[in-house]
Amino acid sequence: MRGEMEDSGFRAIEFDGHRLRLIDQRLLPATEYWLEIPDAEAAARAIRDLVVRGAPAIGITAAYAAVLAARECRGDSGAWNDALDRLERARPTAVNLSWAIARMRRCAEGPGGVDPDALLEEARRIHAEDIEANRAMAQAGAGMLGDSVGVLTHCNTGSLATGGIGTALGVIAEGWRRGRISRVYADETRPWLQGSRLTAWELARLEIPFRVIVEGAAASLMAAGAVDWVITGADRITANGDVANKIGTCMLAVLARHFGVRMMVVAPSSTVDPNLPSGASIDIEERDPAEIWRAAGIEKVPAGFDSYNPVFDVTPGHLVDCIVTEQGVHSPPYRFTVPGAA
Amino acid sequence: MRGEMEDSGFRAIEFDGHRLRLIDQRLLPATEYWLEIPDAEAAARAIRDLVVRGAPAIGITAAYAAVLAARECRGDSGAWNDALDRLERARPTAVNLSWAIARMRRCAEGPGGVDPDALLEEARRIHAEDIEANRAMAQAGAGMLGDSVGVLTHCNTGSLATGGIGTALGVIAEGWRRGRISRVYADETRPWLQGSRLTAWELARLEIPFRVIVEGAAASLMAAGAVDWVITGADRITANGDVANKIGTCMLAVLARHFGVRMMVVAPSSTVDPNLPSGASIDIEERDPAEIWRAAGIEKVPAGFDSYNPVFDVTPGHLVDCIVTEQGVHSPPYRFTVPGAA
Repeated sequence: MRGEMEDSGFRAIEFDGHRLRLIDQRLLPATEYWLEIPDAEAAARAIRDLVVRGAPAIGITAAYAAVLAARECRGDSGAWNDALDRLERARPTAVNLSWAIARMRRCAEGPGGVDPDALLEEARRIHAEDIEANRAMAQAGAGMLGDSVGVLTHCNTGSLATGGIGTALGVIAEGWRRGRISRVYADETRPWLQGSRLTAWELARLEIPFRVIVEGAAASLMAAGAVDWVITGADRITANGDVANKIGTCMLAVLARHFGVRMMVVAPSSTVDPNLPSGASIDIEERDPAEIWRAAGIEKVPAGFDSYNPVFDVTPGHLVDCIVTEQGVHSPPYRFTVPGAA
Repeated sequence: MRGEMEDSGFRAIEFDGHRLRLIDQRLLPATEYWLEIPDAEAAARAIRDLVVRGAPAIGITAAYAAVLAARECRGDSGAWNDALDRLERARPTAVNLSWAIARMRRCAEGPGGVDPDALLEEARRIHAEDIEANRAMAQAGAGMLGDSVGVLTHCNTGSLATGGIGTALGVIAEGWRRGRISRVYADETRPWLQGSRLTAWELARLEIPFRVIVEGAAASLMAAGAVDWVITGADRITANGDVANKIGTCMLAVLARHFGVRMMVVAPSSTVDPNLPSGASIDIEERDPAEIWRAAGIEKVPAGFDSYNPVFDVTPGHLVDCIVTEQGVHSPPYRFTVPGAA
């Protein structure tokens, strides 16, 4: 064991009851700059522009933004619902955003209506539940690892992506603390480089040694036996266990299966969308091609140059060895159901 | 058919009998700058620093550099051989470099000794043979494609990487000319971005429409049925058909097999190294970690940050559906033999 459970205590989302503050993830690791979010409109923009990203983190941000919207609307539920519609449209793939907004809407359906104080309580509850879910997943996931394993993770799934210590990165931090992990590899995660910028920044803060690789290097690492587990988060998990997650996740799952490496997906139940039967119906976001060209130093795209930039993909559930939620470790075949449904 | 065989006539390596000139591939696509290479030492540096890259292209460059070295050494075969040793060490993985140097050494074993004129003739022969091999491979490879196929290529394998129209990119250009190809995707190819910089530049010159993707997007493209063939070059092919090529190639081969996509490797016989029984004994080059961090805007690597940057991987021959050389289309199981051996 390496001390207490790994929680640097770092929180990427702060709400002091009045002001929402987000660390600007576009500027990491070079600059730790906190952005003040004055209103719901600015929060929608921050979600769209990736000031804050990560499925659970954007859900929590939207919940706090709903509080800001309630204060702006002064009880006008029409205006408040419009503001929430705009928040919900900020990003399409992660279900946590609409999940959090649905919870805030349900809270305002009570006799109190659009009451900022009641909504603040609900937003705090969403945040606190995520912190607690992170802890529970870290424990459950770390328990699956085995001894002296090499892990490979993708994108960023730590404190920056969630309310607490993270999903996949929480499992890795806890696995490291328990001495179960001997090597950590992080995909740089093109095009937005969440791995080389954000996961690297978090792992360095946690003092967990790691090596960043390009996505293309995953196969040779696996072929060399350096990886025992691929551990990722998720943006949406459908009833059959299909996983929408950062582009490149499906590649890792196929490679893992080919090379006899296990694949673990870690996500709170707020990421599970049992209303969708399979991943085929998930809306996959495409983003600005500039995200691709910029790495090549191309600001003005030459004539004839074109690119395709989907930022999520869908991994079939049968390629995922286990899905860890705060409720425990799920194994295939997956059958997630709507809570309360028959 | 779309006109004559696609050869833009562009040559990345020029030798007018006296001066060696290379287009500086580090500066493309922003700047088309030709570097004058005054001596063999500068040629070794140009190979090491990726002014020129691509297995056949570095072989041809080394052949011309051996001519420059012969002039510098004025018949001193010891000094000439030392210069060739330094050239040979410039990059370890592609066999074409040592293959070309071995040919130049054999040429100097004759009665004329280290004769610049005879060596120039041999270097021109190596270059001309590569141009002709490119044409033969383009024809043979394009004949394999089928109708209206989507192709995905990796790294850069065109005029910049060879003496002529290229290996994999030559097949794609010829397949496009024949109307066999409906969609061309190019991996951006991290970390050096040969795809988004060099392949994009070449395809745009050839007026072949294409879309650049991040490596992580290959799996979802294949899952969507958008790719029928993965077509790549090679840096070294061993007796059993194992293929050393740009990092990420093995990933593509595994994905292709999983999704029922075919995998074609295109390389001249100078890339085949039948002396090595399998890919296990190929020296895989690691390069400067700065290649990884730079994309993330990280010039000074923060404490605790580490990376792993192997720039080639080995694809097992059994995952490659065909290997196209100028001698024809080879199918598995591959058994390449030393020419003239029993």
